[in-house]
Amino acid sequence: MAFLDRLARAWDANDSMLCIGLDPDPDRFPASIGRRREDVPAFLGEIIDATSDLVCAYKPQIAHFAAIGAERELERTIDRIRQRAPDALVILDAKRGDIGSTAAMYAREAFERYDADAVTVNPYLGTDGLQPFLDHADRGVVILCRTSNPSSAELQNRPGGQPLFEQVAELAAGPWNARGNVMMVAGATHPEELARVRELAPEVPLLVPGLGAQGGDPATIVRAGLDARNRRLVVSSSRAILYAGEGEDFAEAARAEALRARDALRNARDGGNRPSA
Amino acid sequence: MAFLDRLARAWDANDSMLCIGLDPDPDRFPASIGRRREDVPAFLGEIIDATSDLVCAYKPQIAHFAAIGAERELERTIDRIRQRAPDALVILDAKRGDIGSTAAMYAREAFERYDADAVTVNPYLGTDGLQPFLDHADRGVVILCRTSNPSSAELQNRPGGQPLFEQVAELAAGPWNARGNVMMVAGATHPEELARVRELAPEVPLLVPGLGAQGGDPATIVRAGLDARNRRLVVSSSRAILYAGEGEDFAEAARAEALRARDALRNARDGGNRPSA
Repeated sequence: MAFLDRLARAWDANDSMLCIGLDPDPDRFPASIGRRREDVPAFLGEIIDATSDLVCAYKPQIAHFAAIGAERELERTIDRIRQRAPDALVILDAKRGDIGSTAAMYAREAFERYDADAVTVNPYLGTDGLQPFLDHADRGVVILCRTSNPSSAELQNRPGGQPLFEQVAELAAGPWNARGNVMMVAGATHPEELARVRELAPEVPLLVPGLGAQGGDPATIVRAGLDARNRRLVVSSSRAILYAGEGEDFAEAARAEALRARDALRNARDGGNRPSA
Repeated sequence: MAFLDRLARAWDANDSMLCIGLDPDPDRFPASIGRRREDVPAFLGEIIDATSDLVCAYKPQIAHFAAIGAERELERTIDRIRQRAPDALVILDAKRGDIGSTAAMYAREAFERYDADAVTVNPYLGTDGLQPFLDHADRGVVILCRTSNPSSAELQNRPGGQPLFEQVAELAAGPWNARGNVMMVAGATHPEELARVRELAPEVPLLVPGLGAQGGDPATIVRAGLDARNRRLVVSSSRAILYAGEGEDFAEAARAEALRARDALRNARDGGNRPSA
């Protein structure tokens, strides 16, 4: 299935543009789950079970697994998503980027080893570093454009000449998207630039991190990020949902927070006319 | 030990500026070794044993391990380097880059899990994405500046305004280097720009990939890349050494190729007056 069709199916399955970022931090797990590496699949599994009808995607952040040697736990987590939320996309948040021969190995890591539907990548090396990812026409390649972190303007939006993020947006909407499988990351914390990315790339699906813990506002994100048909926007929240509760009821707390986020995004899209759940 | 002292010790131990990149590709292993994931440590172990007196560093490319689920094999390879070449640096080639909280996880992966002496990182996200790496004052942070791949100029050296790689070089030589543990990647395939990086960052050690398979010339690299005291340059070759031979004598072939590379670099530095081994 072409990537855009996968994305549309994921979006429509739950009528949701919410993506939950899976950033496991065992020190923050409830005591009832345990706080060892081996407890990661149980913690994330309960989160997935409690939210599978509310999302279009899950976004495992691979650094949180790699830091503690939890590659098998990542595989088990992805298996759980496939069982419980078969229409949801798995976006592997890895921000890979290297020369072509090495990028081919990273593409294999993301698309074969973990069988992710999409992977985040860094454009610093240019076309030949992205090509091995782009050549997987049935998978999404989520290119960093304007990130949500405090220092992101330093290189991405420096003064003088065309801003780097605009150059990336043009390449991503043009030559890099020859197979129609490009997405872009544009952070929720810079809404004017999110709007500018949407303007430069009117048809490219956007992944917007920064809802929740990083402070992005749902209505602003939705206004700036939707395409002309009110689609092609995926909004990600991680810690605000995962760690909404600290006790045994953490999964219910996560569900309540995910429901709030889904509805806030939906209502912003529909002008507030939609019933909340 | 401060990172610059570690680097000096590694350089002086074998009077070598050669770094061997470890990019395992089991399909290219000799039949005598075997071509399974489990054969990676044996292949790389023989390469390490045959070259431990010729190098200042080994650079495992993590994508080649991650693609085939070979994290344990990477750990065993690093153990072998520590046993056989205790003064050599282990530079984990991972090109990580993310927002601060995630970058902290990647720093933990590189510096705790794998206990690498240095890690390559991507500067696209700016200062706060680099800080968790930079805060490890005893470890090297090898920042991508001007890479060796064919498309590298697209973003790094686009026309109009200050080129991106120059901006990165200035930041890397200035604020990012507050703890004196920054290195930069400047590819062998763009010698004028390598020289420009050296000019903008006269004291920052440079890691120059692209010798060998990618076509970089030793004399050109050395002229452009050494600092004013003829030091602070690490030149990396991967496939040309690893796969110099295809038969049972692959380790001897690798040694011969490594010796040629080490001597070519040394001779270029010393003006050809030095005996070859």
